[in-house]
Amino acid sequence: MHTFETLSKLFIARFDTKHFTGKPVTLYEPADYFLSLGGKRIRPVMCLMANELFDDIIEDTWNVATAIELFHNFTLIHDDIMDKAPLRRGLTTVHIKYGEPTALLAGDVMLVTAYDYLNRMKSGHLQKVIHLFNKTAKEVCEGQQLDMDFEQNMQVSMDEYLHMIELKTSVLLAASLKLGAILGGAGDGNQQHMYEFGRNLGISFQIQDDYLDAFGDPAKVGKQAGGDIKVNKKTFLMIKALESCNDDQLEQLTKLMKENPDDKVERVLEIFRSLGVDKWAISLKEQYMEKAFQHLEEIAVLNVRKEPLRQLTYALMQREY
Amino acid sequence: MHTFETLSKLFIARFDTKHFTGKPVTLYEPADYFLSLGGKRIRPVMCLMANELFDDIIEDTWNVATAIELFHNFTLIHDDIMDKAPLRRGLTTVHIKYGEPTALLAGDVMLVTAYDYLNRMKSGHLQKVIHLFNKTAKEVCEGQQLDMDFEQNMQVSMDEYLHMIELKTSVLLAASLKLGAILGGAGDGNQQHMYEFGRNLGISFQIQDDYLDAFGDPAKVGKQAGGDIKVNKKTFLMIKALESCNDDQLEQLTKLMKENPDDKVERVLEIFRSLGVDKWAISLKEQYMEKAFQHLEEIAVLNVRKEPLRQLTYALMQREY
Repeated sequence: MHTFETLSKLFIARFDTKHFTGKPVTLYEPADYFLSLGGKRIRPVMCLMANELFDDIIEDTWNVATAIELFHNFTLIHDDIMDKAPLRRGLTTVHIKYGEPTALLAGDVMLVTAYDYLNRMKSGHLQKVIHLFNKTAKEVCEGQQLDMDFEQNMQVSMDEYLHMIELKTSVLLAASLKLGAILGGAGDGNQQHMYEFGRNLGISFQIQDDYLDAFGDPAKVGKQAGGDIKVNKKTFLMIKALESCNDDQLEQLTKLMKENPDDKVERVLEIFRSLGVDKWAISLKEQYMEKAFQHLEEIAVLNVRKEPLRQLTYALMQREY
Repeated sequence: MHTFETLSKLFIARFDTKHFTGKPVTLYEPADYFLSLGGKRIRPVMCLMANELFDDIIEDTWNVATAIELFHNFTLIHDDIMDKAPLRRGLTTVHIKYGEPTALLAGDVMLVTAYDYLNRMKSGHLQKVIHLFNKTAKEVCEGQQLDMDFEQNMQVSMDEYLHMIELKTSVLLAASLKLGAILGGAGDGNQQHMYEFGRNLGISFQIQDDYLDAFGDPAKVGKQAGGDIKVNKKTFLMIKALESCNDDQLEQLTKLMKENPDDKVERVLEIFRSLGVDKWAISLKEQYMEKAFQHLEEIAVLNVRKEPLRQLTYALMQREY
């Protein structure tokens, strides 16, 4: 059994090679550039951990983990184009550095390369793995489209927002864990518990992200507080506030979003606090984490094998950044 | 044995259903819209014909043919974004009708759906099929990137242009035929001859396209003559002209491309004719067609089985539109 840190080092040592050595370099260098921006590589490492929950890590899992990380990076390159984002991890995005057409193609070629890694599998799980991978890939696209739709739409219910978050961010974490479980030889029930562990954990992470963006310590978060509020982004907090405020507060919120005064962030946060949205968010995050842990507990393996996943989850949930 | 026309009807009857029934409709309707614009469906039908050259068409081949057509349409949606094309087959392109972000995502989801169809395969060829599919997909992206690179670059040699055309258009036709051969149970040698038949045929088609754009009868071609010349597009004809002209003609061509006078098309065509570029193009097209046929002849099956492919090729090469 390995900790997240150990597997993370092993994965990064394998992953941090040039994946795109082909020609023309005008296509492949931008793809490699994006990978060089780094990232926590949480999804592939959790895939490896899910395999090891059941049995020794097999070679196939390293390839599937690589495919997952390439898929994730493909979505980021294309999302950055769609969002017209100038920066990713503090560095220039691909479409700004190399132009939109090349960024689009570099993303496409990265997705195809993800399937290349899946296709290296030697065990008999290829068809099942591709099936889940495709289902998840389509869901992530659906989530991104819903996210864009919601930007145009003032009225988004909590259920709709939750569904979007599930598709856009949770299902890839859930699928990474389930793929690891499949490759580790888990039975159907255990596979499903792994999936639900990841799905609930993903939602919990997003609530935490939304919370930290509003209420986190800017020194620890590493960015100005209230970035989401500034751009009128729909978040768990804003949707809860809009659902639970009175007419007077609704008028204030609507006016703040429309007029963008200098003290907008403080005043929105004040309304959030007066509605108890901060405490509600912490409690909701804990509910989803609790659900996640219940599924982890239900998995029929020796308790001691669950320790690395448990420790990782606690560490990720206690972060203040 | 079936003719192209018969298989084409059978394929279209299967293919013309809604492939994208999921939610949100804001994502899937644009994908279905693009497929509804139609197309000749030549690649998937040639895949079916290549299967039938060797044996009865199996269910897997219908799925692979569908994957090929979806892949082709994915590339067209993304190419239209890159080229900022307002029209496709005379109708509004996806990015104009639904916006670039949605067009980008609709293309992504179409590519994933192509892999869904591949993954429905029941025979033991899945890994080999995905391998060739991925290799080809990457080459098509490489071709598109080279095409964009060449737009920025005045000096493109005939070899470079030929390589770009091979990647951008020929390899998908070649792969469609080889995939059909694999699924029809062909041996390695026959598979390779099918591939080379398609590769040479694809180049031959492109030379014909370039020729018709310049010298075709506008009434038959269905568009104004000289469209490529108007936008200074690099074509087999233009590259040959630039390679074989004298200093005076080079100066004239360069000036015409820079200044875009009203009589640009006629004057460029005059230079083409004086250099014999028209006759050269017809002869080059025939050389590639001849090479294609040689590979078809080399395939070790009863001669009568080759008749549908032979007839189709003649029909495609004799078109004046």
